[in-house]
Amino acid sequence: MSVRRALEIFALEGVPLVEPGDDLAGLILASLADCGRHLQDHDIVVIAQKVVSKAEGRGVDLAAVTPSPRAVEIAAQAHKDPRIVELILAESSEVLRVRPGVIIVEHRLGLVLANAGIDRSNVEGETALLLPLDPDGSAQQIREQLIAGTGATVGVMIIDSIGRAWRNGTIGTTIGASGIATMRDLRGQPDLFGRKLETTEVGAADEVAAAASLLMGQAAEATPVVVVRGVDLAGIGTARDLLRPKHMDLFR
Amino acid sequence: MSVRRALEIFALEGVPLVEPGDDLAGLILASLADCGRHLQDHDIVVIAQKVVSKAEGRGVDLAAVTPSPRAVEIAAQAHKDPRIVELILAESSEVLRVRPGVIIVEHRLGLVLANAGIDRSNVEGETALLLPLDPDGSAQQIREQLIAGTGATVGVMIIDSIGRAWRNGTIGTTIGASGIATMRDLRGQPDLFGRKLETTEVGAADEVAAAASLLMGQAAEATPVVVVRGVDLAGIGTARDLLRPKHMDLFR
Repeated sequence: MSVRRALEIFALEGVPLVEPGDDLAGLILASLADCGRHLQDHDIVVIAQKVVSKAEGRGVDLAAVTPSPRAVEIAAQAHKDPRIVELILAESSEVLRVRPGVIIVEHRLGLVLANAGIDRSNVEGETALLLPLDPDGSAQQIREQLIAGTGATVGVMIIDSIGRAWRNGTIGTTIGASGIATMRDLRGQPDLFGRKLETTEVGAADEVAAAASLLMGQAAEATPVVVVRGVDLAGIGTARDLLRPKHMDLFR
Repeated sequence: MSVRRALEIFALEGVPLVEPGDDLAGLILASLADCGRHLQDHDIVVIAQKVVSKAEGRGVDLAAVTPSPRAVEIAAQAHKDPRIVELILAESSEVLRVRPGVIIVEHRLGLVLANAGIDRSNVEGETALLLPLDPDGSAQQIREQLIAGTGATVGVMIIDSIGRAWRNGTIGTTIGASGIATMRDLRGQPDLFGRKLETTEVGAADEVAAAASLLMGQAAEATPVVVVRGVDLAGIGTARDLLRPKHMDLFR
Protein backbone atom coordinates (compact mmCIF):
# COMPACT_ATOMS: atom_id res chain seq x y z
CA MET A 1 0.00 0.00 0.00
CA SER A 2 1.11 3.51 -0.64
CA VAL A 3 -0.60 6.44 0.96
CA ARG A 4 -0.30 10.04 0.02
CA ARG A 5 -0.06 12.59 2.78
CA ALA A 6 -3.70 13.60 2.38
CA LEU A 7 -6.99 11.86 1.86
CA GLU A 8 -10.13 13.25 0.33
CA ILE A 9 -13.42 11.63 1.13
CA PHE A 10 -16.59 12.84 -0.54
CA ALA A 11 -20.19 11.72 -0.66
CA LEU A 12 -22.01 11.51 -3.95
CA GLU A 13 -24.90 13.93 -4.03
CA GLY A 14 -28.25 13.14 -5.55
CA VAL A 15 -28.22 9.35 -5.41
CA PRO A 16 -31.96 8.61 -5.64
CA LEU A 17 -33.84 6.28 -3.32
CA VAL A 18 -32.95 2.80 -4.49
CA GLU A 19 -35.65 0.31 -5.51
CA PRO A 20 -35.48 -3.46 -6.09
CA GLY A 21 -34.00 -4.20 -9.48
CA ASP A 22 -32.20 -0.88 -9.77
CA ASP A 23 -28.84 -0.83 -11.49
CA LEU A 24 -26.69 0.52 -8.67
CA ALA A 25 -23.58 1.04 -10.79
CA GLY A 26 -25.73 2.98 -13.27
CA LEU A 27 -27.10 5.18 -10.49
CA ILE A 28 -23.57 5.85 -9.24
CA LEU A 29 -22.34 6.76 -12.70
CA ALA A 30 -25.31 9.11 -13.15
CA SER A 31 -24.65 10.77 -9.78
CA LEU A 32 -20.99 11.23 -10.65
CA ALA A 33 -21.98 12.92 -13.88
CA ASP A 34 -24.60 15.07 -12.13
CA CYS A 35 -22.12 16.45 -9.64
CA GLY A 36 -19.28 16.78 -12.11
CA ARG A 37 -17.04 14.29 -10.33
CA HIS A 38 -14.67 11.86 -12.04
CA LEU A 39 -13.34 8.67 -10.56
CA GLN A 40 -9.57 8.19 -10.57
CA ASP A 41 -7.38 5.11 -10.45
CA HIS A 42 -7.16 3.75 -6.89
CA ASP A 43 -10.29 5.55 -5.71
CA ILE A 44 -12.33 3.35 -3.43
CA VAL A 45 -16.08 3.57 -3.96
CA VAL A 46 -17.78 2.71 -0.68
CA ILE A 47 -21.45 1.74 -0.76
CA ALA A 48 -23.87 1.33 2.14
CA GLN A 49 -25.12 -2.24 2.55
CA LYS A 50 -28.68 -1.01 2.67
CA VAL A 51 -28.85 0.21 -0.90
CA VAL A 52 -27.12 -2.91 -2.23
CA SER A 53 -29.65 -5.07 -0.41
CA LYS A 54 -32.53 -2.97 -1.69
CA ALA A 55 -31.33 -3.08 -5.29
CA GLU A 56 -30.92 -6.85 -5.01
CA GLY A 57 -34.44 -7.30 -3.72
CA ARG A 58 -33.40 -8.58 -0.29
CA GLY A 59 -36.50 -7.15 1.37
CA VAL A 60 -38.76 -9.74 2.99
CA ASP A 61 -42.44 -9.14 3.69
CA LEU A 62 -42.89 -10.03 7.35
CA ALA A 63 -46.49 -11.08 6.72
CA ALA A 64 -45.15 -14.01 4.72
CA VAL A 65 -42.86 -15.28 7.49
CA THR A 66 -43.97 -18.12 9.77
CA PRO A 67 -41.72 -18.41 12.82
CA SER A 68 -40.46 -21.82 13.87
CA PRO A 69 -40.83 -22.99 17.50
CA ARG A 70 -37.14 -22.21 18.04
CA ALA A 71 -37.64 -18.69 16.70
CA VAL A 72 -40.61 -18.19 19.03
CA GLU A 73 -38.54 -19.34 21.99
CA ILE A 74 -35.56 -17.10 21.21
CA ALA A 75 -37.90 -14.20 20.42
CA ALA A 76 -39.30 -14.46 23.95
CA GLN A 77 -35.79 -14.25 25.41
CA ALA A 78 -34.80 -11.39 23.12
CA HIS A 79 -38.13 -9.50 23.30
CA LYS A 80 -38.26 -9.42 19.53
CA ASP A 81 -40.81 -10.06 16.80
CA PRO A 82 -40.69 -13.87 16.22
CA ARG A 83 -40.85 -13.31 12.47
CA ILE A 84 -37.68 -11.18 12.62
CA VAL A 85 -36.04 -13.87 14.74
CA GLU A 86 -37.00 -16.49 12.16
CA LEU A 87 -35.16 -14.45 9.54
CA ILE A 88 -32.16 -13.95 11.84
CA LEU A 89 -31.89 -17.70 12.38
CA ALA A 90 -32.24 -18.43 8.68
CA GLU A 91 -29.41 -16.00 7.93
CA SER A 92 -27.06 -17.37 10.60
CA SER A 93 -24.82 -20.35 11.08
CA GLU A 94 -24.61 -20.02 14.88
CA VAL A 95 -26.28 -18.12 17.70
CA LEU A 96 -23.61 -16.80 20.08
CA ARG A 97 -25.58 -14.73 22.62
CA VAL A 98 -29.23 -13.87 23.29
CA ARG A 99 -30.19 -10.92 25.48
CA PRO A 100 -33.21 -8.61 25.60
CA GLY A 101 -33.04 -6.54 22.44
CA VAL A 102 -30.18 -8.34 20.78
CA ILE A 103 -29.23 -11.67 19.26
CA ILE A 104 -25.52 -11.97 18.43
CA VAL A 105 -24.90 -14.48 15.66
CA GLU A 106 -22.31 -15.70 13.27
CA HIS A 107 -23.88 -14.74 9.98
CA ARG A 108 -23.71 -17.21 7.10
CA LEU A 109 -21.12 -14.84 5.58
CA GLY A 110 -18.89 -15.39 8.63
CA LEU A 111 -19.49 -11.98 10.20
CA VAL A 112 -20.20 -11.88 13.92
CA LEU A 113 -22.88 -9.28 14.39
CA ALA A 114 -26.15 -8.37 16.08
CA ASN A 115 -29.45 -9.56 14.64
CA ALA A 116 -27.78 -10.94 11.51
CA GLY A 117 -27.55 -7.40 10.16
CA ILE A 118 -31.28 -7.42 9.53
CA ASP A 119 -32.60 -3.97 9.49
CA ARG A 120 -35.95 -2.28 9.58
CA SER A 121 -34.80 1.34 9.41
CA ASN A 122 -35.12 3.20 6.14
CA VAL A 123 -37.34 0.38 4.91
CA GLU A 124 -40.99 0.96 4.10
CA GLY A 125 -43.82 -0.88 5.80
CA GLU A 126 -43.63 -4.38 7.25
CA THR A 127 -40.46 -5.28 5.46
CA ALA A 128 -37.13 -6.50 6.81
CA LEU A 129 -33.98 -6.08 4.79
CA LEU A 130 -31.40 -8.89 4.73
CA LEU A 131 -27.72 -8.50 3.90
CA PRO A 132 -26.80 -9.10 0.25
CA LEU A 133 -26.50 -12.78 -0.68
CA ASP A 134 -22.85 -12.39 -1.69
CA PRO A 135 -21.45 -8.93 -0.88
CA ASP A 136 -17.98 -9.73 -2.24
CA GLY A 137 -19.64 -10.79 -5.48
CA SER A 138 -21.84 -7.70 -5.53
CA ALA A 139 -18.78 -5.52 -5.02
CA GLN A 140 -17.02 -7.26 -7.87
CA GLN A 141 -19.95 -6.82 -10.22
CA ILE A 142 -20.36 -3.13 -9.39
CA ARG A 143 -16.62 -2.63 -9.71
CA GLU A 144 -16.54 -4.09 -13.20
CA GLN A 145 -19.39 -1.82 -14.26
CA LEU A 146 -17.73 1.26 -12.77
CA ILE A 147 -14.44 0.46 -14.49
CA ALA A 148 -16.26 -0.08 -17.78
CA GLY A 149 -18.16 3.17 -17.33
CA THR A 150 -15.30 5.40 -16.24
CA GLY A 151 -12.05 3.81 -17.39
CA ALA A 152 -10.69 4.27 -13.86
CA THR A 153 -9.33 1.25 -12.00
CA VAL A 154 -11.26 1.68 -8.77
CA GLY A 155 -11.90 -0.58 -5.82
CA VAL A 156 -15.39 -1.14 -4.43
CA MET A 157 -16.45 -1.82 -0.87
CA ILE A 158 -19.82 -2.53 0.71
CA ILE A 159 -20.05 -1.57 4.37
CA ASP A 160 -22.44 -1.86 7.28
CA SER A 161 -22.52 -0.31 10.76
CA ILE A 162 -21.56 -3.10 13.11
CA GLY A 163 -21.21 -3.30 16.87
CA ARG A 164 -18.12 -4.54 18.66
CA ALA A 165 -17.08 -6.46 21.72
CA TRP A 166 -15.87 -4.28 24.62
CA ARG A 167 -16.66 -0.93 23.01
CA ASN A 168 -19.78 1.17 22.75
CA GLY A 169 -21.22 2.16 19.41
CA THR A 170 -21.21 0.77 15.92
CA ILE A 171 -18.62 1.65 13.34
CA GLY A 172 -18.57 1.26 9.58
CA THR A 173 -17.19 -2.20 8.77
CA THR A 174 -16.38 -3.99 5.52
CA ILE A 175 -18.84 -6.69 4.45
CA GLY A 176 -17.95 -6.85 0.75
CA ALA A 177 -14.92 -5.83 -1.26
CA SER A 178 -13.39 -6.16 -4.70
CA GLY A 179 -10.13 -4.93 -6.13
CA ILE A 180 -8.74 -4.09 -2.69
CA ALA A 181 -6.00 -5.55 -0.52
CA THR A 182 -8.26 -5.51 2.53
CA MET A 183 -5.44 -6.41 4.94
CA ARG A 184 -2.01 -4.75 5.17
CA ASP A 185 0.63 -7.14 6.38
CA LEU A 186 3.49 -5.18 7.88
CA ARG A 187 5.23 -8.14 9.51
CA GLY A 188 8.93 -8.10 8.86
CA GLN A 189 9.05 -4.47 7.80
CA PRO A 190 11.59 -2.37 9.66
CA ASP A 191 10.49 0.28 12.09
CA LEU A 192 12.20 3.65 12.53
CA PHE A 193 15.09 1.99 14.39
CA GLY A 194 15.44 -0.98 12.09
CA ARG A 195 13.72 -3.39 14.46
CA LYS A 196 11.35 -5.70 12.62
CA LEU A 197 7.66 -5.26 13.35
CA GLU A 198 6.48 -8.51 14.87
CA THR A 199 2.74 -8.76 14.67
CA THR A 200 1.36 -5.81 12.84
CA GLU A 201 -1.37 -6.68 10.44
CA VAL A 202 -3.72 -3.81 9.75
CA GLY A 203 -7.37 -4.20 8.81
CA ALA A 204 -6.93 -1.41 6.29
CA ALA A 205 -10.26 -1.89 4.53
CA ASP A 206 -12.06 -1.57 7.85
CA GLU A 207 -10.24 1.72 8.42
CA VAL A 208 -11.54 2.87 5.03
CA ALA A 209 -15.03 1.64 5.94
CA ALA A 210 -15.02 3.58 9.19
CA ALA A 211 -13.78 6.70 7.43
CA ALA A 212 -16.47 6.49 4.75
CA SER A 213 -19.13 5.87 7.38
CA LEU A 214 -18.50 9.33 8.81
CA LEU A 215 -20.01 10.80 5.64
CA MET A 216 -22.83 8.31 5.19
CA GLY A 217 -24.75 9.02 8.35
CA GLN A 218 -27.33 6.62 9.66
CA ALA A 219 -30.65 8.35 9.53
CA ALA A 220 -32.13 10.59 6.86
CA GLU A 221 -28.91 11.85 5.34
CA ALA A 222 -29.33 9.66 2.27
CA THR A 223 -25.75 9.62 1.13
CA PRO A 224 -25.17 5.92 0.56
CA VAL A 225 -22.16 6.25 -1.72
CA VAL A 226 -18.84 7.75 -0.64
CA VAL A 227 -15.54 7.94 -2.51
CA VAL A 228 -12.24 7.61 -0.63
CA ARG A 229 -9.31 9.06 -2.53
CA GLY A 230 -5.67 8.89 -1.52
CA VAL A 231 -5.35 5.40 -0.03
CA ASP A 232 -3.99 2.95 -2.54
CA LEU A 233 -5.20 -0.49 -1.49
CA ALA A 234 -5.23 -1.92 -5.02
CA GLY A 235 -5.05 -5.70 -4.77
CA ILE A 236 -7.11 -8.83 -4.90
CA GLY A 237 -8.57 -9.13 -1.41
CA THR A 238 -12.14 -9.61 -0.29
CA ALA A 239 -14.12 -8.92 2.86
CA ARG A 240 -13.61 -12.55 3.85
CA ASP A 241 -9.92 -11.83 4.46
CA LEU A 242 -11.00 -9.71 7.43
CA LEU A 243 -12.80 -12.58 9.16
CA ARG A 244 -10.79 -14.27 11.88
CA PRO A 245 -11.25 -18.02 11.52
CA LYS A 246 -13.32 -19.42 14.37
CA HIS A 247 -10.52 -21.71 15.58
CA MET A 248 -8.22 -18.67 15.91
CA ASP A 249 -10.77 -16.57 17.77
CA LEU A 250 -10.46 -16.19 21.54
CA PHE A 251 -13.79 -14.46 22.12
CA ARG A 252 -16.80 -16.52 21.19
CA MET B 1 -22.95 16.31 14.92
CA SER B 2 -22.98 17.93 11.57
CA VAL B 3 -20.95 16.60 8.71
CA ARG B 4 -20.16 18.33 5.51
CA ARG B 5 -20.27 16.36 2.29
CA ALA B 6 -16.51 16.03 2.15
CA LEU B 7 -13.71 15.35 4.57
CA GLU B 8 -10.11 16.31 4.26
CA ILE B 9 -7.54 14.36 6.23
CA PHE B 10 -3.91 15.41 6.16
CA ALA B 11 -0.74 14.38 7.93
CA LEU B 12 1.58 16.99 9.36
CA GLU B 13 4.94 16.89 7.67
CA GLY B 14 8.19 17.32 9.48
CA VAL B 15 7.20 16.36 13.02
CA PRO B 16 10.60 15.47 14.51
CA LEU B 17 11.36 12.32 16.46
CA VAL B 18 9.87 12.88 19.87
CA GLU B 19 12.00 12.65 23.03
CA PRO B 20 11.01 12.42 26.68
CA GLY B 21 10.05 15.81 28.01
CA ASP B 22 9.26 17.27 24.61
CA ASP B 23 6.40 19.74 24.37
CA LEU B 24 4.17 17.91 21.93
CA ALA B 25 1.76 20.79 21.39
CA GLY B 26 4.73 23.02 20.65
CA LEU B 27 6.07 20.53 18.09
CA ILE B 28 2.64 20.37 16.44
CA LEU B 29 2.39 24.16 16.26
CA ALA B 30 5.87 24.33 14.75
CA SER B 31 5.02 21.67 12.15
CA LEU B 32 1.83 23.51 11.23
CA ALA B 33 3.82 26.69 10.70
CA ASP B 34 6.49 24.84 8.70
CA CYS B 35 4.00 23.40 6.26
CA GLY B 36 1.85 26.53 6.07
CA ARG B 37 -1.24 24.85 7.49
CA HIS B 38 -3.74 26.52 9.77
CA LEU B 39 -6.09 24.78 12.14
CA GLN B 40 -9.79 25.63 11.85
CA ASP B 41 -12.64 25.38 14.31
CA HIS B 42 -13.88 21.78 14.60
CA ASP B 43 -10.71 20.30 13.18
CA ILE B 44 -9.77 17.15 15.04
CA VAL B 45 -6.04 16.76 15.71
CA VAL B 46 -5.28 13.05 15.97
CA ILE B 47 -2.02 12.01 17.62
CA ALA B 48 -0.38 8.58 17.68
CA GLN B 49 -0.16 7.10 21.20
CA LYS B 50 3.49 6.37 20.69
CA VAL B 51 4.64 9.97 20.54
CA VAL B 52 2.47 10.96 23.50
CA SER B 53 3.99 8.14 25.53
CA LYS B 54 7.49 9.11 24.46
CA ALA B 55 7.00 12.78 25.30
CA GLU B 56 5.62 11.79 28.70
CA GLY B 57 8.61 9.59 29.46
CA ARG B 58 6.64 6.35 29.56
CA GLY B 59 9.61 4.30 28.36
CA VAL B 60 10.79 1.66 30.81
CA ASP B 61 14.31 0.23 30.78
CA LEU B 62 13.81 -3.55 30.72
CA ALA B 63 17.09 -4.08 32.59
CA ALA B 64 15.46 -2.49 35.63
CA VAL B 65 12.42 -4.80 35.63
CA THR B 66 12.32 -7.84 37.93
CA PRO B 67 9.54 -10.21 36.94
CA SER B 68 7.29 -11.65 39.63
CA PRO B 69 6.63 -15.41 39.83
CA ARG B 70 3.23 -14.84 38.22
CA ALA B 71 4.85 -12.93 35.35
CA VAL B 72 7.33 -15.74 34.84
CA GLU B 73 4.52 -18.28 34.74
CA ILE B 74 2.42 -16.33 32.24
CA ALA B 75 5.51 -15.54 30.17
CA ALA B 76 6.09 -19.26 29.75
CA GLN B 77 2.54 -19.74 28.46
CA ALA B 78 2.77 -16.70 26.19
CA HIS B 79 6.36 -17.30 25.00
CA LYS B 80 7.22 -13.77 25.96
CA ASP B 81 9.99 -11.95 27.81
CA PRO B 82 9.04 -12.20 31.53
CA ARG B 83 10.06 -8.59 32.03
CA ILE B 84 7.57 -7.47 29.37
CA VAL B 85 4.92 -9.65 31.01
CA GLU B 86 5.67 -8.02 34.37
CA LEU B 87 4.95 -4.64 32.79
CA ILE B 88 1.80 -5.98 31.12
CA LEU B 89 0.48 -7.22 34.46
CA ALA B 90 1.35 -3.98 36.22
CA GLU B 91 -0.57 -2.04 33.57
CA SER B 92 -3.65 -4.27 33.68
CA SER B 93 -6.63 -4.81 35.93
CA GLU B 94 -7.47 -8.27 34.57
CA VAL B 95 -5.95 -10.94 32.34
CA LEU B 96 -8.61 -12.23 29.92
CA ARG B 97 -6.71 -14.67 27.68
CA VAL B 98 -3.17 -16.01 27.37
CA ARG B 99 -1.95 -17.68 24.20
CA PRO B 100 1.47 -18.04 22.58
CA GLY B 101 2.42 -14.57 21.43
CA VAL B 102 -0.42 -12.69 23.03
CA ILE B 103 -1.86 -11.75 26.40
CA ILE B 104 -5.29 -10.10 26.20
CA VAL B 105 -5.97 -7.88 29.18
CA GLU B 106 -8.26 -5.25 30.48
CA HIS B 107 -5.90 -2.33 30.75
CA ARG B 108 -6.13 -0.10 33.83
CA LEU B 109 -7.70 2.50 31.49
CA GLY B 110 -10.56 0.07 30.77
CA LEU B 111 -9.42 -0.82 27.26
CA VAL B 112 -9.44 -4.49 26.28
CA LEU B 113 -6.33 -5.05 24.22
CA ALA B 114 -3.32 -7.24 23.54
CA ASN B 115 -0.21 -6.96 25.70
CA ALA B 116 -1.57 -3.89 27.52
CA GLY B 117 -0.64 -1.81 24.49
CA ILE B 118 3.03 -2.14 25.40
CA ASP B 119 5.15 -1.68 22.40
CA ARG B 120 8.75 -2.23 21.44
CA SER B 121 8.58 -1.00 17.86
CA ASN B 122 9.98 2.43 17.04
CA VAL B 123 11.61 2.40 20.46
CA GLU B 124 15.38 2.38 20.86
CA GLY B 125 17.29 -0.32 22.69
CA GLU B 126 15.94 -2.40 25.56
CA THR B 127 13.05 -0.13 26.27
CA ALA B 128 9.35 -0.84 26.41
CA LEU B 129 6.84 1.94 25.94
CA LEU B 130 3.70 2.03 28.10
CA LEU B 131 0.47 3.81 27.25
CA PRO B 132 0.16 7.35 28.61
CA LEU B 133 -0.87 7.52 32.27
CA ASP B 134 -4.04 9.47 31.46
CA PRO B 135 -4.66 9.81 27.72
CA ASP B 136 -7.89 11.77 28.17
CA GLY B 137 -5.97 14.19 30.37
CA SER B 138 -3.09 14.36 27.89
CA ALA B 139 -5.54 15.12 25.09
CA GLN B 140 -7.11 17.86 27.16
CA GLN B 141 -3.78 19.45 27.95
CA ILE B 142 -2.62 19.37 24.33
CA ARG B 143 -5.98 20.71 23.21
CA GLU B 144 -5.75 23.70 25.53
CA GLN B 145 -2.28 24.49 24.21
CA LEU B 146 -3.37 24.17 20.58
CA ILE B 147 -6.36 26.43 21.15
CA ALA B 148 -4.13 28.96 22.90
CA GLY B 149 -1.61 28.77 20.07
CA THR B 150 -3.98 28.94 17.13
CA GLY B 151 -7.24 30.50 18.29
CA ALA B 152 -9.08 27.60 16.65
CA THR B 153 -11.48 25.53 18.74
CA VAL B 154 -10.17 22.10 17.84
CA GLY B 155 -10.68 18.65 19.31
CA VAL B 156 -7.79 16.36 20.15
CA MET B 157 -7.64 12.60 20.04
CA ILE B 158 -4.92 10.10 20.93
CA ILE B 159 -5.17 6.79 19.10
CA ASP B 160 -3.54 3.38 19.03
CA SER B 161 -3.74 0.43 16.65
CA ILE B 162 -5.80 -2.18 18.47
CA GLY B 163 -6.91 -5.68 17.58
CA ARG B 164 -10.50 -6.84 17.68
CA ALA B 165 -12.56 -9.90 18.47
CA TRP B 166 -13.72 -11.84 15.41
CA ARG B 167 -11.82 -9.82 12.82
CA ASN B 168 -8.29 -9.88 11.51
CA GLY B 169 -6.05 -6.87 11.75
CA THR B 170 -5.70 -3.89 14.00
CA ILE B 171 -7.46 -0.62 13.38
CA GLY B 172 -6.89 2.85 14.73
CA THR B 173 -8.89 3.21 17.95
CA THR B 174 -9.48 6.08 20.36
CA ILE B 175 -7.62 5.90 23.67
CA GLY B 176 -7.78 9.58 24.65
CA ALA B 177 -10.01 12.46 23.62
CA SER B 178 -10.87 16.01 24.57
CA GLY B 179 -13.40 18.45 23.15
CA ILE B 180 -15.15 15.73 21.17
CA ALA B 181 -18.54 14.06 21.43
CA THR B 182 -16.98 10.62 21.02
CA MET B 183 -20.36 8.86 20.68
CA ARG B 184 -23.23 9.86 18.40
CA ASP B 185 -26.57 8.84 19.82
CA LEU B 186 -29.09 8.56 16.99
CA ARG B 187 -31.77 6.82 19.03
CA GLY B 188 -35.16 8.37 18.47
CA GLN B 189 -34.17 10.19 15.31
CA PRO B 190 -36.40 9.54 12.32
CA ASP B 191 -35.16 7.52 9.37
CA LEU B 192 -36.05 8.27 5.76
CA PHE B 193 -39.54 6.87 6.26
CA GLY B 194 -40.14 8.48 9.64
CA ARG B 195 -39.56 5.27 11.59
CA LYS B 196 -37.57 5.94 14.72
CA LEU B 197 -34.12 4.39 14.82
CA GLU B 198 -34.10 1.99 17.73
CA THR B 199 -30.57 1.17 18.71
CA THR B 200 -28.19 3.22 16.67
CA GLU B 201 -25.34 4.60 18.66
CA VAL B 202 -22.26 5.29 16.59
CA GLY B 203 -18.72 5.18 17.92
CA ALA B 204 -17.94 8.28 15.88
CA ALA B 205 -14.56 9.02 17.46
CA ASP B 206 -13.42 5.50 16.62
CA GLU B 207 -14.43 6.13 13.01
CA VAL B 208 -12.25 9.26 13.07
CA ALA B 209 -9.43 7.26 14.67
CA ALA B 210 -9.58 4.61 11.96
CA ALA B 211 -9.64 7.26 9.24
CA ALA B 212 -6.63 9.07 10.68
CA SER B 213 -4.76 5.80 11.09
CA LEU B 214 -4.78 5.35 7.31
CA LEU B 215 -2.35 8.29 7.07
CA MET B 216 -0.21 7.45 10.08
CA GLY B 217 1.18 4.17 8.93
CA GLN B 218 2.80 1.78 11.37
CA ALA B 219 6.40 1.45 10.41
CA ALA B 220 8.86 4.07 9.31
CA GLU B 221 6.41 6.61 7.89
CA ALA B 222 6.87 8.89 10.87
CA THR B 223 3.67 10.86 10.51
CA PRO B 224 2.31 10.73 14.04
CA VAL B 225 -0.03 13.71 13.76
CA VAL B 226 -3.02 13.84 11.42
CA VAL B 227 -5.74 16.48 11.10
CA VAL B 228 -9.32 15.45 10.26
CA ARG B 229 -11.37 18.28 8.84
CA GLY B 230 -15.06 18.20 8.01
CA VAL B 231 -16.52 16.13 10.83
CA ASP B 232 -17.92 18.29 13.57
CA LEU B 233 -17.87 16.25 16.76
CA ALA B 234 -17.51 19.25 19.07
CA GLY B 235 -18.67 18.26 22.54
CA ILE B 236 -17.48 17.18 25.93
CA GLY B 237 -16.83 13.46 25.56
CA THR B 238 -13.77 11.42 26.39
CA ALA B 239 -12.34 8.10 25.29
CA ARG B 240 -13.92 6.51 28.35
CA ASP B 241 -17.37 7.00 26.79
CA LEU B 242 -16.39 4.40 24.21
CA LEU B 243 -15.72 1.68 26.80
CA ARG B 244 -18.58 -0.75 27.27
CA PRO B 245 -19.00 -1.34 31.00
CA LYS B 246 -17.96 -4.85 31.97
CA HIS B 247 -21.41 -5.79 33.24
CA MET B 248 -22.90 -4.87 29.84
CA ASP B 249 -20.32 -6.79 27.85
CA LEU B 250 -21.24 -10.19 26.42
CA PHE B 251 -17.76 -11.20 25.25
CA ARG B 252 -15.21 -11.50 28.04
